[in-house]
Amino acid sequence: MRVRAGGSAAGARPRITLLTDFGTADGYVAAMRGVLATLAPDTPVDDASHAIGHGDIEAAAWCLLQYWDRYPVGGVHLVVVDPGVGGSRRPIAGEVAGRFFVAPDNGVLTHVLAANPSFELVHIDASAVVLEPTSATFHGRDIFAPAAARLATGTRLERLGTAINDPVALNVAPARQERGVLHGEVVHVDRFGNLITNVPGDWLEGASDVIVSGRSVGRPRRHYGDAAAGELVALIDSAGRLEIAVRDASAAARLGTSRGAPVTVRLGGGD
Amino acid sequence: MRVRAGGSAAGARPRITLLTDFGTADGYVAAMRGVLATLAPDTPVDDASHAIGHGDIEAAAWCLLQYWDRYPVGGVHLVVVDPGVGGSRRPIAGEVAGRFFVAPDNGVLTHVLAANPSFELVHIDASAVVLEPTSATFHGRDIFAPAAARLATGTRLERLGTAINDPVALNVAPARQERGVLHGEVVHVDRFGNLITNVPGDWLEGASDVIVSGRSVGRPRRHYGDAAAGELVALIDSAGRLEIAVRDASAAARLGTSRGAPVTVRLGGGD
Amino acid sequence: MRVRAGGSAAGARPRITLLTDFGTADGYVAAMRGVLATLAPDTPVDDASHAIGHGDIEAAAWCLLQYWDRYPVGGVHLVVVDPGVGGSRRPIAGEVAGRFFVAPDNGVLTHVLAANPSFELVHIDASAVVLEPTSATFHGRDIFAPAAARLATGTRLERLGTAINDPVALNVAPARQERGVLHGEVVHVDRFGNLITNVPGDWLEGASDVIVSGRSVGRPRRHYGDAAAGELVALIDSAGRLEIAVRDASAAARLGTSRGAPVTVRLGGGD
Repeated sequence: MRVRAGGSAAGARPRITLLTDFGTADGYVAAMRGVLATLAPDTPVDDASHAIGHGDIEAAAWCLLQYWDRYPVGGVHLVVVDPGVGGSRRPIAGEVAGRFFVAPDNGVLTHVLAANPSFELVHIDASAVVLEPTSATFHGRDIFAPAAARLATGTRLERLGTAINDPVALNVAPARQERGVLHGEVVHVDRFGNLITNVPGDWLEGASDVIVSGRSVGRPRRHYGDAAAGELVALIDSAGRLEIAVRDASAAARLGTSRGAPVTVRLGGGD
Repeated sequence: MRVRAGGSAAGARPRITLLTDFGTADGYVAAMRGVLATLAPDTPVDDASHAIGHGDIEAAAWCLLQYWDRYPVGGVHLVVVDPGVGGSRRPIAGEVAGRFFVAPDNGVLTHVLAANPSFELVHIDASAVVLEPTSATFHGRDIFAPAAARLATGTRLERLGTAINDPVALNVAPARQERGVLHGEVVHVDRFGNLITNVPGDWLEGASDVIVSGRSVGRPRRHYGDAAAGELVALIDSAGRLEIAVRDASAAARLGTSRGAPVTVRLGGGD
Repeated sequence: MRVRAGGSAAGARPRITLLTDFGTADGYVAAMRGVLATLAPDTPVDDASHAIGHGDIEAAAWCLLQYWDRYPVGGVHLVVVDPGVGGSRRPIAGEVAGRFFVAPDNGVLTHVLAANPSFELVHIDASAVVLEPTSATFHGRDIFAPAAARLATGTRLERLGTAINDPVALNVAPARQERGVLHGEVVHVDRFGNLITNVPGDWLEGASDVIVSGRSVGRPRRHYGDAAAGELVALIDSAGRLEIAVRDASAAARLGTSRGAPVTVRLGGGD
């Protein structure tokens, strides 16, 4: 179909997604779900993930980027990866391209905000929003979930608190081009050991070689299937970025590569 | 907002939560969900957790305590951590403070029942409830899920079986105070390595020192943020109990402490 | 109740189940859920599992077998365990016993199709179904999820593509009987370390001994509870097959047994 998913879905009920680093075994996620079931009883709630590494804001920001705009407008994306809970970091809520976000102000919304310069943000400081007593250690349950429930049930963003325009941002180095060579880095390693980079796929025209961890991977190809089993292959991933993979195996394990590793791409006629 | 979540939610549909030690990869949880979808097709089902340790009744009881009363009244909390399946333990169902419970009679409801002396329980022995043929090894699918579906769709508790008043209880030692010292123990270690104790937070007035695993942690503080990164800190957790944590790290790993470790708190002016 | 779950549920909304080997932390599952929320906004979506081993088609096929017919007719079971993505394997959809399936054509539907010789299958090749641009590496989001949403919202199977009758099948050796001895194999090891075999439970009448990994387990018994703690026991599992277990422990760990290990059963008077 020619209509990309993520567009307006007429008649869709708003929906809440949950992204945390809580795991599930301690009951913290279920406590948040109980709050949502109480305050927004008719709103479906989707688990995005609870398996983000402990306090890994970068990983959460990356995960969120994969799905937020695949959901219909009107929904609420709730992120609680919050190593700073109980410190001075602000709880924030925002609206970007018709979707709502609730999260700690620690950079986890960086990629969403970067891609959409037109956004509205508030510091959640309206006392009518939070549950009392408010735990000093579990704002997911007592601040973020209630705020998400409010947005899902029609409360306007500006009712949640004071407008801000200085959200904390992750220090993300963009890829750059210099004398016929692209310089980027590995920004995510997925469960399959695929190395996902910050090099835009549409910069790869004429690429003759991709080098990661000192290893030449050759020119980008179109499918995993274009490589033999066990062979390293560069290709454009499902989010439109350069990815290095091994068919049926882990490129990260093969190369000993982790997040932050530099990647270079030679453009023009290879040697 | 001044209304605590978990109160009555007018118009909320009943909801079922699922807590098991099954993991998901074997399809056992999905089989239970299929039964629920058949017998209670309009009831939303929330995964609380399927990551409880194999047969760890204490951990399941703790997890349940975090969420059961955050959900609206009328819902059904289904727990299948059931190392005794196929033995003589009874399948039971109950009503506590307006919520329904379905579980094996092995102590997993201990904390819920202890906090609410007014409860009703039945032994699920009504033959009309269970699926036939009934597997000898999977009562989650053939007894517990059908019973939960019945409760969610309006069947009254007493229709599920014979009233009982002697549920199995875990042997939970309460904290106690003796000559200006509180004695308790670690009752749960969460995913972050936080040590959660059975010492009520409101006993901590005037506490001058917390000692766990032979290590002095100092007086309780209010926030994680009141400790330096890497520092041990005692505080009151989100369920109102004394907790020992390390900011941005695992107290359990740092101290080598696990469930059952003794904790003492000195009251009054410490040295 | 005498009606087995999985029968027709009058008035039930169709439901979609998701089974993948994606884990959740990379956001791939949430991206699929976003597509479903956009294209089938009123259809509940159940997570069956995202913890299947990377590319383990046999495990996914086994998992699916536990739940597909426990769900009401009319639902859609979506499976994306797809090591061949981007190669020549076909995306397929099917209808079996009133349920719909969407999956790669790699054998993951083997058990469902084997049990139900009357089925309809199509190669999903209708261009109106897929999202564009279509990623070369993530057909779960761009082909399979849109196809599942179409089926859930009433599109007829034949509208998704061209009928086929040659699905890829796993090479599954059935158990056999030879001169008073049953020969089978371990087809699944579950989270508890239980060894599940391909020997039908109703072949076990008169069985006098079960032997696995060179170890005699004795005659099949009815419950886990019929064995002492720590004792090996053979019994009929919840899907009606011979299983070897250890009460409160892992038979797989005890015996060093994994998938594919031979199992023999002596019928008639034991020695």
